[in-house]
Amino acid sequence: MRLATFDEDRIGVVQDDHVLDVTSLVEPLGTGTSAMRRLITNWGELDLSSATGPRRPLAEVRLEAPVPDPTKVIAAPVNYRDHQSEMSQASHVSSLGFFLKAPSSLLRPQGTVQLPYTDRRFDQEGELACVIGRQARAVSPEDALSYVFGYTGLLDITMRGGEDRSTRKSFETFTPMGPWLVTADEFGPPVDVDLRCWVTGNLRQRANTADLIWDVARLVSYASWVTTLEPGDILTTGTPAGVGPLQDGDTIELDLARIGGVLRVTVSAGGAGTSHTLGRDTGPVPPPALTWGAAGSASAEPAGEPTPS
Amino acid sequence: MRLATFDEDRIGVVQDDHVLDVTSLVEPLGTGTSAMRRLITNWGELDLSSATGPRRPLAEVRLEAPVPDPTKVIAAPVNYRDHQSEMSQASHVSSLGFFLKAPSSLLRPQGTVQLPYTDRRFDQEGELACVIGRQARAVSPEDALSYVFGYTGLLDITMRGGEDRSTRKSFETFTPMGPWLVTADEFGPPVDVDLRCWVTGNLRQRANTADLIWDVARLVSYASWVTTLEPGDILTTGTPAGVGPLQDGDTIELDLARIGGVLRVTVSAGGAGTSHTLGRDTGPVPPPALTWGAAGSASAEPAGEPTPS
Repeated sequence: MRLATFDEDRIGVVQDDHVLDVTSLVEPLGTGTSAMRRLITNWGELDLSSATGPRRPLAEVRLEAPVPDPTKVIAAPVNYRDHQSEMSQASHVSSLGFFLKAPSSLLRPQGTVQLPYTDRRFDQEGELACVIGRQARAVSPEDALSYVFGYTGLLDITMRGGEDRSTRKSFETFTPMGPWLVTADEFGPPVDVDLRCWVTGNLRQRANTADLIWDVARLVSYASWVTTLEPGDILTTGTPAGVGPLQDGDTIELDLARIGGVLRVTVSAGGAGTSHTLGRDTGPVPPPALTWGAAGSASAEPAGEPTPS
Repeated sequence: MRLATFDEDRIGVVQDDHVLDVTSLVEPLGTGTSAMRRLITNWGELDLSSATGPRRPLAEVRLEAPVPDPTKVIAAPVNYRDHQSEMSQASHVSSLGFFLKAPSSLLRPQGTVQLPYTDRRFDQEGELACVIGRQARAVSPEDALSYVFGYTGLLDITMRGGEDRSTRKSFETFTPMGPWLVTADEFGPPVDVDLRCWVTGNLRQRANTADLIWDVARLVSYASWVTTLEPGDILTTGTPAGVGPLQDGDTIELDLARIGGVLRVTVSAGGAGTSHTLGRDTGPVPPPALTWGAAGSASAEPAGEPTPS
């Protein structure tokens, strides 16, 4: 089942090019958290298979981040060996554990990533993310996937430099997510999932989750030993090689197999100023910007690889 | 005014050795967030000066973290030069920005810090923290303190090693906070605040917020340029020199001038296992454990410095 948040705090089932509005199902279930978190928290008592409600064309609704208010956004640093290599990092996730992104950095599909500074480099990082379905504490890798409610796409927009990861990745709008989530039963095991990420038509990232150093089960298990995972919490798996700089006017598109839709956002540097910290010339050295050339060049695009429709 | 959360989700005004229960004031203000967050969010419409309610002896209530459910816990890394020196760090907050702690790591006063691993070192870090009173986005240092609702004590319990700060500092129970918060009008400007932190009777940390590299105003301002600060969000200012290892059975006491009460927790290694990551021998090298000796020794205690009553 494909589940979307749209038009502020409505939730619906995505069916082909329509969305079935099932918000009324969760309206009796309290307030204070988003409709999607109430849906997830009460999933066992709800039956959406026979749900009715207004049907709206997808093209006429404004999609929001599938879970707009998670208590935590947990992210894996350096979880693909080819990204470890391109960043010349000595350590990967097995030594680094996870980092946290501010939930306030979430951005809706079709939204605009606002680059805050003119004097810093910002990169796209396309990732597979999972959404936690029920409280998880100290669960084994063998059991971990049973705590996952569903999967979605996530862009971990990142400032390069020496600042703490939480800072470099928590700027407002730096966590586009969506376009919707696919429940775990429909998505299937999160192995062998193809990922492609384009920036302004150039394919920058092409990978498969088979190459994750810590797979989803291991990542969820580890995080649950450190902290209690709550329904609606987001865990994102890290990015493969192919990160590169963003500039004003870029479009980022992330396509994950089995999601059935592309996460697409634009990039703006409007209103950007100079940075307030001194980390520009420290931290891991990213791959050179020239790899991909200017917008519109096809230097990194494999032959025959279409941009997403 | 001193405001406490106690007995699950009750809130009250601390008056000498009693607490005046004012929970009924916020009960009409919705659900879904803690009573304290509702109090803070609606502070402008509330008048607690003439509030009535049951009075309970402080000794008979169970204090909770003053804000049990912030959307973010933002923390300054390396914000005192003497701590930068003891950790042999090349960078401080001006290069590092902030890191995030999981809100689920909050611990109540009198609670127990659970050390998760037997093969890793864990240190106490005593800090002054502030609580945000109203939404703040891109505010100047000059205006920043007007967005602060109040102040409290915070222990940033930290695993040493090479893992990301978010991991090393987000273990369950790793953020004791309290014993209550003091509103900004009563606390006064957060400069020249004495801080003392004892571990099992030994004074390990003695500092003054005059020595902060980024003071509270600068820290709140910076964080608000990165992310939107919400009512109830916590910003903690970083720790001075004197961090040191914790062991099973320790007691940690943090006394901040003008809070009017000591934050006291105990430490347990019960149930600890071996760590799941490989960061033990990487990361900044902390000061040696021998500085303070075993529990009960007084090697680091300045003459005449009493433990808190």
